Formats: sequence, structure tokens, C-alpha cells
Amino acid sequence: MIISMKLHATREEIDEVTAIVKHFGYKVHSIEGEERVVIGVVGVGDVTPCLESVESLPQVDSVVRISAPYKFVSKEFRKGKTRIRVNGIEIGGEEFVVIAGPCSVESEEQIVGLARKLKAMGASGLRGGAFKPRTSPYSFQGMGTDGLKLLKAAGEHFGMPVVTEVMDPRQVELVDRYADMLQVGARNMQNFDLLREVGQTRKPVLLKRGMSATVKDLLMSAEYILNEGNAQVVLCERGVRTFEDSTRNMLDMSAVPNVKGQSHLPIIVDPSHATGRPDLIPAMARAAVAAGADGVHIEVHSCPERALSDGPQALLPPQFAAVMRDMRRLAEGLGETIA
Amino acid sequence: MIISMKLHATREEIDEVTAIVKHFGYKVHSIEGEERVVIGVVGVGDVTPCLESVESLPQVDSVVRISAPYKFVSKEFRKGKTRIRVNGIEIGGEEFVVIAGPCSVESEEQIVGLARKLKAMGASGLRGGAFKPRTSPYSFQGMGTDGLKLLKAAGEHFGMPVVTEVMDPRQVELVDRYADMLQVGARNMQNFDLLREVGQTRKPVLLKRGMSATVKDLLMSAEYILNEGNAQVVLCERGVRTFEDSTRNMLDMSAVPNVKGQSHLPIIVDPSHATGRPDLIPAMARAAVAAGADGVHIEVHSCPERALSDGPQALLPPQFAAVMRDMRRLAEGLGETIA
Amino acid sequence: MIISMKLHATREEIDEVTAIVKHFGYKVHSIEGEERVVIGVVGVGDVTPCLESVESLPQVDSVVRISAPYKFVSKEFRKGKTRIRVNGIEIGGEEFVVIAGPCSVESEEQIVGLARKLKAMGASGLRGGAFKPRTSPYSFQGMGTDGLKLLKAAGEHFGMPVVTEVMDPRQVELVDRYADMLQVGARNMQNFDLLREVGQTRKPVLLKRGMSATVKDLLMSAEYILNEGNAQVVLCERGVRTFEDSTRNMLDMSAVPNVKGQSHLPIIVDPSHATGRPDLIPAMARAAVAAGADGVHIEVHSCPERALSDGPQALLPPQFAAVMRDMRRLAEGLGETIA
Amino acid sequence: MIISMKLHATREEIDEVTAIVKHFGYKVHSIEGEERVVIGVVGVGDVTPCLESVESLPQVDSVVRISAPYKFVSKEFRKGKTRIRVNGIEIGGEEFVVIAGPCSVESEEQIVGLARKLKAMGASGLRGGAFKPRTSPYSFQGMGTDGLKLLKAAGEHFGMPVVTEVMDPRQVELVDRYADMLQVGARNMQNFDLLREVGQTRKPVLLKRGMSATVKDLLMSAEYILNEGNAQVVLCERGVRTFEDSTRNMLDMSAVPNVKGQSHLPIIVDPSHATGRPDLIPAMARAAVAAGADGVHIEVHSCPERALSDGPQALLPPQFAAVMRDMRRLAEGLGETIA
Repeated sequence: MIISMKLHATREEIDEVTAIVKHFGYKVHSIEGEERVVIGVVGVGDVTPCLESVESLPQVDSVVRISAPYKFVSKEFRKGKTRIRVNGIEIGGEEFVVIAGPCSVESEEQIVGLARKLKAMGASGLRGGAFKPRTSPYSFQGMGTDGLKLLKAAGEHFGMPVVTEVMDPRQVELVDRYADMLQVGARNMQNFDLLREVGQTRKPVLLKRGMSATVKDLLMSAEYILNEGNAQVVLCERGVRTFEDSTRNMLDMSAVPNVKGQSHLPIIVDPSHATGRPDLIPAMARAAVAAGADGVHIEVHSCPERALSDGPQALLPPQFAAVMRDMRRLAEGLGETIA
Repeated sequence: MIISMKLHATREEIDEVTAIVKHFGYKVHSIEGEERVVIGVVGVGDVTPCLESVESLPQVDSVVRISAPYKFVSKEFRKGKTRIRVNGIEIGGEEFVVIAGPCSVESEEQIVGLARKLKAMGASGLRGGAFKPRTSPYSFQGMGTDGLKLLKAAGEHFGMPVVTEVMDPRQVELVDRYADMLQVGARNMQNFDLLREVGQTRKPVLLKRGMSATVKDLLMSAEYILNEGNAQVVLCERGVRTFEDSTRNMLDMSAVPNVKGQSHLPIIVDPSHATGRPDLIPAMARAAVAAGADGVHIEVHSCPERALSDGPQALLPPQFAAVMRDMRRLAEGLGETIA
Repeated sequence: MIISMKLHATREEIDEVTAIVKHFGYKVHSIEGEERVVIGVVGVGDVTPCLESVESLPQVDSVVRISAPYKFVSKEFRKGKTRIRVNGIEIGGEEFVVIAGPCSVESEEQIVGLARKLKAMGASGLRGGAFKPRTSPYSFQGMGTDGLKLLKAAGEHFGMPVVTEVMDPRQVELVDRYADMLQVGARNMQNFDLLREVGQTRKPVLLKRGMSATVKDLLMSAEYILNEGNAQVVLCERGVRTFEDSTRNMLDMSAVPNVKGQSHLPIIVDPSHATGRPDLIPAMARAAVAAGADGVHIEVHSCPERALSDGPQALLPPQFAAVMRDMRRLAEGLGETIA
Repeated sequence: MIISMKLHATREEIDEVTAIVKHFGYKVHSIEGEERVVIGVVGVGDVTPCLESVESLPQVDSVVRISAPYKFVSKEFRKGKTRIRVNGIEIGGEEFVVIAGPCSVESEEQIVGLARKLKAMGASGLRGGAFKPRTSPYSFQGMGTDGLKLLKAAGEHFGMPVVTEVMDPRQVELVDRYADMLQVGARNMQNFDLLREVGQTRKPVLLKRGMSATVKDLLMSAEYILNEGNAQVVLCERGVRTFEDSTRNMLDMSAVPNVKGQSHLPIIVDPSHATGRPDLIPAMARAAVAAGADGVHIEVHSCPERALSDGPQALLPPQFAAVMRDMRRLAEGLGETIA
């Protein structure tokens, strides 16, 4: 941690800062420049409380953190890649993983019919919403428990692990009973009580990046889950909000190598929510393979025009089959395989 | 709702769209241009489900909603301004309201000492966090129930209604017991289960704008609360996330008249979280008065350098007193008063 | 400047860095922490070249600049406020200044008729575009030299200094001949050749903030002008681009005190371009007064529905008159006056 | 174009709108809904002037453009892909093109030495700055004409077409003399006089996306060039500005298929400026191949720690060689080749 004093801070003001730093158990190295004094803080342990105290002093110009604010998610904590087993498939391992399914579970016929096609086309995991976070209270809110049951049954029948979103800490126990992987959605990435609750389960968690979350924020939210004892977190880049208005969000593809440079956790890409446009999804799925992602998460619908939610961003099964073919060719070019 | 077909859509493709629209009970007016067909959809009721179905068709270029997607929060639903009584004070009425207090309740001595000063300086409401949403799991998370009790006692002693954040649907009952107003924080603005839960209480709600929420998103989240039967919602502009890195967030002051043009709900401004900089808070508090806000929400701390959270953005009591004086002068200039 | 080495950087790698720093004439203070080495760089003069060299070394984790990268625009360079005289009016002095006029000069009748009204209503300066930056090549591009002449004549007739935009370094001489103040528009804030060219004139410059420019970027662009010898720069906050789609841009009102804390230059606010909505302009003009701006820049049109450019964001004269009244009342409340 | 009237607009107000529309030569189709009237405008030709007039009327709620505002850049204007020949190489054709070189030309030794290596490693084009747009007036501004000469000589010697930036309309003639392709940088994407000037040359233009430009804005700027008669425009995605602070910009990879869906023009990707981080460039270069870009534009420096500008974002030659190998493998996987 480096503390820059304001220009012309007095000796007493500087001493007040060093006293606080020492109070937190750190050593101090002052650098007296021509114009201002800079104080280096050296020591072990999380500097957050000390930083927050010092930052508020009027004589302090700025405080810069040198070490990362997270621990368990960092590469310093764990050198290799974390591989996460989700009921028969592995995310973060040798193979690239494809999770696909409808936005919402809508009926047995729908989810079974679609799961059959997706399995045949090469998807490993099955996704489908039972509890839906919708901007409008008047949009379809999901089938709830019935949706969970249908999803689980379809997954078991076709040997596909199932992923579904949990939105409320009170639902965690219920969703945990039916899902193989618990999804925390973008709107809840900083719902810290929910993060703690899924951190107390033994289930893998798919943590989606918030609409205005930095990569560091995403890692901090994962840290909440790991800090509760659950180390099975898969991150998901799904686009962030910007001024660009021709796509639903802006897919930050560089988040893939960015996360991999800092953390041992796997990261997958969701081109469906990121773009909101079926015409852009195939190129972004291919790019995810090339960028080194551990997988993709794609929405597919057998009949998008009747979809009760988020129809516009779903691929039709033939479009999905074409994307699978493209991703396979690319993976082969890179000497990799798709699960 | 206006549906633009793709260039060269066939007659059959157009018919498919009009059939769907009619299926939802709307009337159709087609405009056949030189290059493309545009379909106007006329009728009453929420068009969201119809819009979502049509939007996903491949022959559709774009769908534009004409009417606002919310109902209870709109000026069409309720003409006048909604005035919200919060245990003795009124927000949205004749007077401009000042709510002040520390980021977190830290001890009886702290909250009582500060409440005494704030009351004397002219604050109407007392704020203080008991449950804190923190980006890092290693930051101070609040005093919990003990903090609620201390806050309530201080509020009662000085005759100030108290506002505090609730983060988890499971805490709503508890917080409701102690607080006069329930705050839903920026990170939870789209925590829809929490919105529903506070919507089922009879307490006024302070709903803060999310970091990447549009004004429309904010109103949609308020709609969730009103839709549950609780019409006492005060909105709060607290800055959004942008590329500007010299302030914590960017205060969107235009949200004040923007909201007032669309909704009957009151809106206050939080210059503390919006700027994160004590040197900018006074000017932004003055601007909030001038822009027509119904109040401000300001963090004050008796001893910022010992603050356990968010110290840097709090004013010291003498700074707060100066802001109060400035706001009073301005209000008088406008022929208004401060509660 | 503070250089943080990567974890586990070797002694040789550290020595390489210190050698480069010394090569640029600075002194070095190393802080050897438990985990990493941090190098403080001390000395006088602009560190930019040294920073750029060191930043690129693979063993360097990050480099943080401690002193501001600008010189002439900073409060350290000049303590008081700079007052800029523009043919009879003063910006940055005791009085709040109102510059108003149409987006584009369209005819003699239009500009003279409007100038008469604006003068009577209390505007000090007259603005009007002769060369227009338009997103589309098919939009009206301005009247050019004829527009300049009409604007100058109207200004002289009513005793109002005139401001107009210059877009091309080759136009500077021409525009300089007719205008009392040269405007550099948002799209050209980092058109460095244009900045240098206006920096070589003796005319005051109105420099508008770019759509994605930070406050620091804005000050750096002003530095280009001052560095050429022209110290008469007025900054203008006119909104930045964000995800919010209900306003044309987002007015960053906090830029007013933010700039004033760092620079001696005056700053005015343009609520017309910032919001793009006549219904929001009055509240934002009032807020600009309260926030401490040195003036406002407002578009007014006698007949918006016939405006050849940017009609939607202009006020009608009666609306402008109401805004003037509101601003005056506020200014009086603050013990200030409007020019 | 679709015009939505305000709720409760009167018959006279509606008639005023239709009169204006007809005045511009369009036909009108009104849709009278329960709550409001919507007016469809039908006809040929650019609706911009009509749209701008109507949009400003107080009785109008919103105006939505149905057809794209550009003409020459659109797929409707030209069906196939435009292939652009740049002195021996082709962009937009069968082969993926790699343009590489230093940020700035710094000396004959530097540019010749680097060009030799890049050619041997497989780069097709050579880039290098002679006139540099720098945020600070105190940063290195480029070698000017001497830099152009050195670049041209190096390009000719190794048979590589050269690309360099032109910043000022007055420089176009000079740069045109030495360069095979004229680059318009991000900061000048809406410098319309410069766009017109390069539009009057016969040289291919590399047009980089502005830091806060939408894809539509980028296409509109290209339209300026095509409208002057120069149809040889290559677009370049180089990242946009967002709240994410761990990368220099955010690379919008989806702009590649997004542009290709609307325009016949080629688009390449610049992962160097987009990320500003050598550790992220390789993954983003691979992703560009997979996303269907027509090429990449990469900064390489033989000795980044001595680079006079933008060192941190340049790759070292061995890193570049590795990126070339990766891109080739991917291209082969896709059945494509690299020039």
C-alpha cells in the first residue's frame, strides 16, 4: 500500500498517518520528494481496514493498493487450474464444455424435446430457468419448483448435468435439491447474502459477471463464495453495459485471459446474453474457443417465437448445431477437444 | 408497439407476425413502405408478452415499445405528487428533507453523539448501516441487530425517523421492526425477491438506483414494490458507473427532473456515494436543491479517520453544517424551505 | 511516481528498473516488502517519458503517477481564478454568464430576431454555428462564412460577444476574424492540431468536454492550448456518453467543483447538449448555478420545428425567459449576480 | 420513420405533424390507438431532415428511424464484400491480413530492423506512427516527415505496404505521398473535415472506431469518406471506453460480425490498443481470427522498454512470432489462410 500525502502536508499530519499505519501492525517507509511525501506500507495480511482508515484523512491525497484484495481466488493461493466436476462433466479441465438450453423451462414436452436434440448435437450440460429475474414484474417469472423438477428429470434422462439460477437465499436449499450447478445471475453478483448461502452448499456455482462489474469485482464476489468453504466456482463472462445500443450488452472477451492471468478458477462465456442477437452468437462462440475459455453457455429454443422470455437471444436447434460444428473445427485447429 | 419487418420479408412472413399479434388480442395496422413493411399494434394492456414473442422472429428487424412498460409508478396512473410520511417527516411534500448519518452504526456513543449534532444542525432523518453490502468479504460487514437497536434508540431520543439498509429477504421482518424506512441499496436494485418482500411491508422504502441502471430500470424496480401493494417508495439517485475515474460514480443530476416527468414518486439525491469525495459533496447537495430534488441523503462522521467503512466519502460535522447553511440559502432563494 | 515490481522479481530485474529511472535524472527509494519491491521515484520535472519507458518492462507490475500530468492549467501553477474577458463580458469573474443562441445560424432574420430577444431576456453572449460537426454527411452542415458574417453583425448590433465553433485547423484564421470566442467542440477535444492552432491565436477559447473524456483528459487538452501561449481557456461540461438512453448524454455536474479543485480555469455548463431534452434543461441550468459554475451555454430557437439541426434540444424564447428568471432568483439566494 | 405523438395530442397538433411530413415529400399512414396516435412515414430518400424537424415539436413523444441512416456503406447498396488492394496485399479477400509495426517510427535502424523481423515472421503490412496523437503535450509527438520517409523506405525494401496515421487535413497531401494506406485514428473518427479530405484521395483508408463511438457512428463516419468518392475504407475495432479499469479499453469483438451484417466493408481488429496489455493480446488476436475479422493490427517493438510512446502495449518480436503461429493454426482449423 502506498500513501501519497497532499502537497505541503505538515510534519504533524504525516506523523498522524504513520501512527495509524503502525497501529495496524505495518512497517512504514517514507519517501520525501521535492514536492510531497509518499509513505510505503509494508507487512503481511489484508490491508483493507488500514487502507480505509487512512484514505479518509484530509491530508492524504490518494492511497494505492499494491497487492490484490482477494486471496482464495488468486493464482498466488493456488498455482494450477481448478477443475470442477459437475455430475459427470468437468469444467476447467482438458475439454471445452458446452452448456445449452432454453431461457426458461416451460413444459415437460419442451425441455425433454430440447434436451434430446441438444444431447445429440453435442452439448454436455443442460441449462434452464425455473426462477427468472425479470426487469418487469409483468414478464413471465418462471415455473418455480415445477420447472426444477422437469429440468432435473430431463437432465437425468439424457445424462446431462443441469444448471439453473437461484435468486433468493431462501431458495438455495430448494434449488440445491434439484440442480447439479447453482447459477448466480448478473443482477445478483453482489447480492452478498446469496453468495454466502451458495458458499455454504457443496454444489458447484456458476457466477455470472454483473452488468457493471469490473473483473476485479467479479473475483471479489467469487472470493465471498470461496471464503465460505465452497471452492467450486466457475465464472461466466456475459457482457457488460455500455453506450453501444445495437447489442444487448458488450461482451468483454478479454475478460477470459484477464481472469486466467489472476485466478485459478475456470471461466466460460455466454454469448447469448452478451449480444442478445442470434446473428452474432456464432462468431462470439467461436471467439470464446479461440480466446481460451473453458466453455460456453448458450440459449437454444425449439420455437423462439413462442418463448415466454428472452426469445430474441436464443438460437434455433439447427443454428446451434452449426455453432457446435464450428467450435469443434476450431478446437481441433488448436489441438483441443470439446467434451 | 411498432414492428419493423426486415427488408424483403415475404407475405407469409408478415402474415405470421400479424397472426401472433392478433393471438394476443391486439389490432394490427400495416404500413407498406417502398422498402419494408411496418406493423402498428393497437390495444390496451401490457404488451410485454406479445413484444417478447414477436421480437424473436427472424423476419422481424426491430420492435419498438410506444407506451411505458410500468403502470403504478407512472404519472398516467396518479396525477399529483406522492407524499410519503416517515414517522413524523414528509418526503415529497412542501419541504426539502435532509437525511444524514454515518455509513455504519459503530457504537452507542458514536450514533448518539452524531445524532445529537445532526439534529442540532437541522437534519430531519437519521441514517446508519447495520447490515453492510461490501465488495470484499474482508471489509467490516456491520453490527447487525445490535446496530439496528442502537440506531432506533438514537432516532427515538432525538425525534428523528431512522433509515437503514436491508439486504436479504430474510432480514426484512427484523429490519422492519426497528427502522422507520427500509433502504434497498444500489447493488440490490434488481434483487427482485427483496423488492417483493419490502413491497409486502407497510413501511416506506428508499430505493437506490443501481450502478448501471437506467432511469427506466429504476422505475421498473419501484413498480415491483408498488405492485405488491406498498406505494410508499422514495427513489434515490446515487450515481452510476462510467469511465470517469476521478469520482466514485457519476451523479446523474438530470435523473431528478427526468423521474419527475414520468412518475409521481419523490426522488432524493445522495451526493456522498455518488461522488465519494467530500470536496464535491457540498456543490452537489446545493445542485440537488436547485434541480428540484425532494431531499438529500448525506454521510457524516464525527471521526472519519476511524470510520470502519467508507470513511473517505463522509463529511465532518462542521462541513455538514456549512452544507446545511448553503442549502437553506438556496431554498429560500427558490421560495422553499428545508424541513 | 511509484513503481511496483512483480512478485518475485529478481535483483537484476530491479536493478534494470532503477538504472532507467536514474538515467532520466531521478532519485530512487526502494521499499522491500515481504512479497514485493516498490520503487519510489523522486525529482522534479515531467515524469511522462520515464513513466512510459518503465511501464513497459515485463518485471514491472504497475506504475502510479503521483503528481498531476499537467502544469499550466493547475492550481499549483496559478493560485487565483483566471478571469477571461470576451469582448465586454468576463467569464470566471464575479458574475454568472449566460451564452445563448441557436444551434446553427440560418438566416439574417433568424439570428437578428433571436439575438434581440435573448439580449432583452438577459443573455450576455450569443452563440451560433456556422460550421457544424454532424454525425451524418447528409445532415445540414452549416452556412459557413456567410453564417460567420451574420453572427458577427448580430452580435455587434446588440452588443453581445459571439461564440462559434471551429472544426478544422485551416478554418481558425477565418473564424478568428469574425468570432469573439472560438469554440472547440466535443468531437474535437482531442484534435491536437486544432488545439495547437487555436492556442496560437489571441482569442478566448471555449473547450467542450469530449463524449468519453475524463476530467483529467479535458484538462490535458486545455494544457495543449495554454502550452502554445493562449491562457484564455473556458472549459465546458456538456455531458458524456453512458448506457443511459433516455437522455442524449449524461451531464456530469460534479465536473464543476472537480475542475475548480484542480484548475484556475473557469468552467461553464451546457445543459442543452448534455440532456438533449428541453424538459430537463431548466433544472440543469439551475443546478449549474448552484454547483458553482461560471456560466451556462443554452440553445434557443425561435421556431424549433423548422430548425435545420438539433431542434429537439433547443428551448423556445419563453422557456428561456423562465430559465433566466429561475437562475436569477437562485443567484440572489447565493448572494451572486448574473451578468 | 415512425412518429409517436404524445398522449392526448390534439387533432390540430397531429395535423401540424402530417403537414410537415408531406412538405418533405413523404406519405403518411396514421394509426390511431386507444391512447395515442402513431404516424408512419413512407417514401424514398434520406429522412434525416424531416426527422430532425419533426422531432423538435412539443406534441411529438419520439421519432424512430426505420431505415439505416447510411447508404454507400450498407449491404443494400453493395451486396458482396468489398476487397481493398493496398499496394500488393488485399484486405477483405480470401486471406487474413496481419499488419504489424512499432507505435512510432523512431530511427532508421529501428524501423528497418523491425520490418525485417516482422516480414520473416509473416506480417503482410507495416505500420508505424510519424504524427502521434498524444493526450499530453509533453509526450513524444512523432518524427513527422522524417518518420514518413523512413517508414516508406523500410516498406519498399521488404515489400510491405505501409500504414500511418494522418491527424490534420493539412497533412493529408504529405502523408498520401509516403503511405500506402492512410490511418484515421480513434480520436479523429468524427473529425469530419479530415474524413472529407481523406475521402478525396485515392488511397485506402484505415478508419479506427472512436472511444465512445457506436457501430452505427463508425459506419456513419465511413459514409463521409465514401460520400467523397473514396470507397476503399477498412474499419478497425480498437476498443471502447468503459468503467473497466484493468484494461486500457474494452475490445468489442462482437463489432466484427455486427459490422459484417450491415456493411460490405472489411473490418480488422487492433488488440494492442484495445487491451493495452501484452498478456491479453495473443488471446484477442486468436479470437479475432475466429470471429471472422479480415485481419489484425498489432504493435510490436524490438525494445519496448526504450519505446518513446505506448511501450506497454507492444509485443516483443518473439511474442509476436508466437501469436502468428497461433493465428495460423486457427485459420487452418477454419479452412482459411493468412496472407
